[in-house]
Amino acid sequence: MDGLSEKELIEALLRYRGSGASLPVKNGDDAAVIEAGGKLLAVTTDALVQGVHFEFSYCPPKNAGIKAMESAASDVVAMGGKPSYALIALSAPSDLTQELIEELYGGLEASAKRIGCSIIGGNVVVSAAPLSLTVTVLGEIQGADLICTRAGARPGDLICISGELGRAAAGLRALQKGLPGFKVLERAFLEPRCRVDLVEKLAPVATSMIDISDGLSSELYHICDASVCGAVIDQDRLPTGEDLTELAAKSGSDPLALIFGGGEDYELLYTVHPEDRGAIAGYQIGTIEAEKGVRLKDKAGEVRELPRIGYDHFA
Amino acid sequence: MDGLSEKELIEALLRYRGSGASLPVKNGDDAAVIEAGGKLLAVTTDALVQGVHFEFSYCPPKNAGIKAMESAASDVVAMGGKPSYALIALSAPSDLTQELIEELYGGLEASAKRIGCSIIGGNVVVSAAPLSLTVTVLGEIQGADLICTRAGARPGDLICISGELGRAAAGLRALQKGLPGFKVLERAFLEPRCRVDLVEKLAPVATSMIDISDGLSSELYHICDASVCGAVIDQDRLPTGEDLTELAAKSGSDPLALIFGGGEDYELLYTVHPEDRGAIAGYQIGTIEAEKGVRLKDKAGEVRELPRIGYDHFA
Repeated sequence: MDGLSEKELIEALLRYRGSGASLPVKNGDDAAVIEAGGKLLAVTTDALVQGVHFEFSYCPPKNAGIKAMESAASDVVAMGGKPSYALIALSAPSDLTQELIEELYGGLEASAKRIGCSIIGGNVVVSAAPLSLTVTVLGEIQGADLICTRAGARPGDLICISGELGRAAAGLRALQKGLPGFKVLERAFLEPRCRVDLVEKLAPVATSMIDISDGLSSELYHICDASVCGAVIDQDRLPTGEDLTELAAKSGSDPLALIFGGGEDYELLYTVHPEDRGAIAGYQIGTIEAEKGVRLKDKAGEVRELPRIGYDHFA
Repeated sequence: MDGLSEKELIEALLRYRGSGASLPVKNGDDAAVIEAGGKLLAVTTDALVQGVHFEFSYCPPKNAGIKAMESAASDVVAMGGKPSYALIALSAPSDLTQELIEELYGGLEASAKRIGCSIIGGNVVVSAAPLSLTVTVLGEIQGADLICTRAGARPGDLICISGELGRAAAGLRALQKGLPGFKVLERAFLEPRCRVDLVEKLAPVATSMIDISDGLSSELYHICDASVCGAVIDQDRLPTGEDLTELAAKSGSDPLALIFGGGEDYELLYTVHPEDRGAIAGYQIGTIEAEKGVRLKDKAGEVRELPRIGYDHFA
């Protein structure tokens, strides 16, 4: 039998999710939500693996720790939860040094502190390479009406992002290609910050929410699939920093490819009813429509379908 | 700098535990305990790694799934909790077949069902070998007086185990050496069962509790260290099945080495006040003493110190 893609693996996994449980949120959202003593807890587990998500050649151990904690916490944030507790499972080769582990956990702890999350447990296995960090995060959601799933977007809702996108992917490219002069973009990759600062502001108004871990395109499709609707993104409204444009030019790529295809920004993608326009944090970049699919309206006003993953330039 | 042992890694990790949190249970127990809406939740994360904990040559994927779920749930049970929810993080090489993943998750799901635990989420990463399964389990503890830490044993308490020990290690030996005729021992390794059936009975009376994941010797030291006391085990009281004795003879080892050094039985090791003798499930095998250290009283009445890990035959 042939090998499986990550997508096929995830689909196989999803079939086993939620077996037997009656949960406040449907399977397959950013985090699971459970009830305990009338309180709602969002719970998620997320892995960062050497050779897949980072290499020590361009990502120091401290930053691997930061990325692991921020990306796991971001899933709780995207559900409308405030991360409170984390558990860390480390699988590492036996030639790991004391220095490396101190840096790795230093990064995990620094991020946990920033986010307001306590590291309460973990597990360590000495194994063959690669190093992997699996972080479980729990966080409280203050009420059932504050749960932010992917499923609540309605035609007419405004599509918003909490900050500029594509910057982590651009920073990774600068690091991998050794392009000088892009320190700010590099930091977007090496020191991402989940948007825990926006939970209280956005949870009451977001009709749907997800975090940008895999790029704007696939995250938008996730919202549209779950909400049974479509989306149009207005190219004119996409914020694009000069450094991103410059990096794209120097590395021979399209800034839109970085924005739609690049992940690990951990900004929030969310929708609000037009009446809640005043509560938007960041940028409104488009509108939810009844017609399914995700479309881009370019600067000339032409509308075209976006692929589910990444971005194809219109020939 | 030299590489680190698993013990050193765990010690390094423990320094980062519980940072900033005020928790009902001290760091370093079987599971962390958090409060949510007045309810107590035990939370643990545990990894099963190919090449470290199992090989597919003697442990089919379904059994790897069973072992991963039972061992994680066992940590919640050992705190006095009933496992309710599980999250599964899988890191697997890309040549994984659909068949293998179905078997793996089939095992995870069968165990979760047996234990009464719902699989509510997870994560999948396609990476280099080895395959690893990190299972997070949450479970409710019915009240603060039912939390079973390692720290409550007092001199005079009776030391008990919920079932025979060394059987999983014996089964592993039979599998690895291809010794025929030990199916029951092999099942102890391939299909361990955490003692969720005993939580309600033992949590009210256990003054301390831990599960046998690493062998009787090290688990006893964990209880004695946390409880600031010592223990004497009575060799006469150690239950030893005929099959274990036979396997030990055939593989040239001492049954006591399997009992004290062998792990992954997932039986419960616990202590009770002598007045609660009637509530013991399994076997009383010794007594807690004020004098520190863990000792074995052999059949001749001779008392000797046991090593922290495993078992040394008295020359």
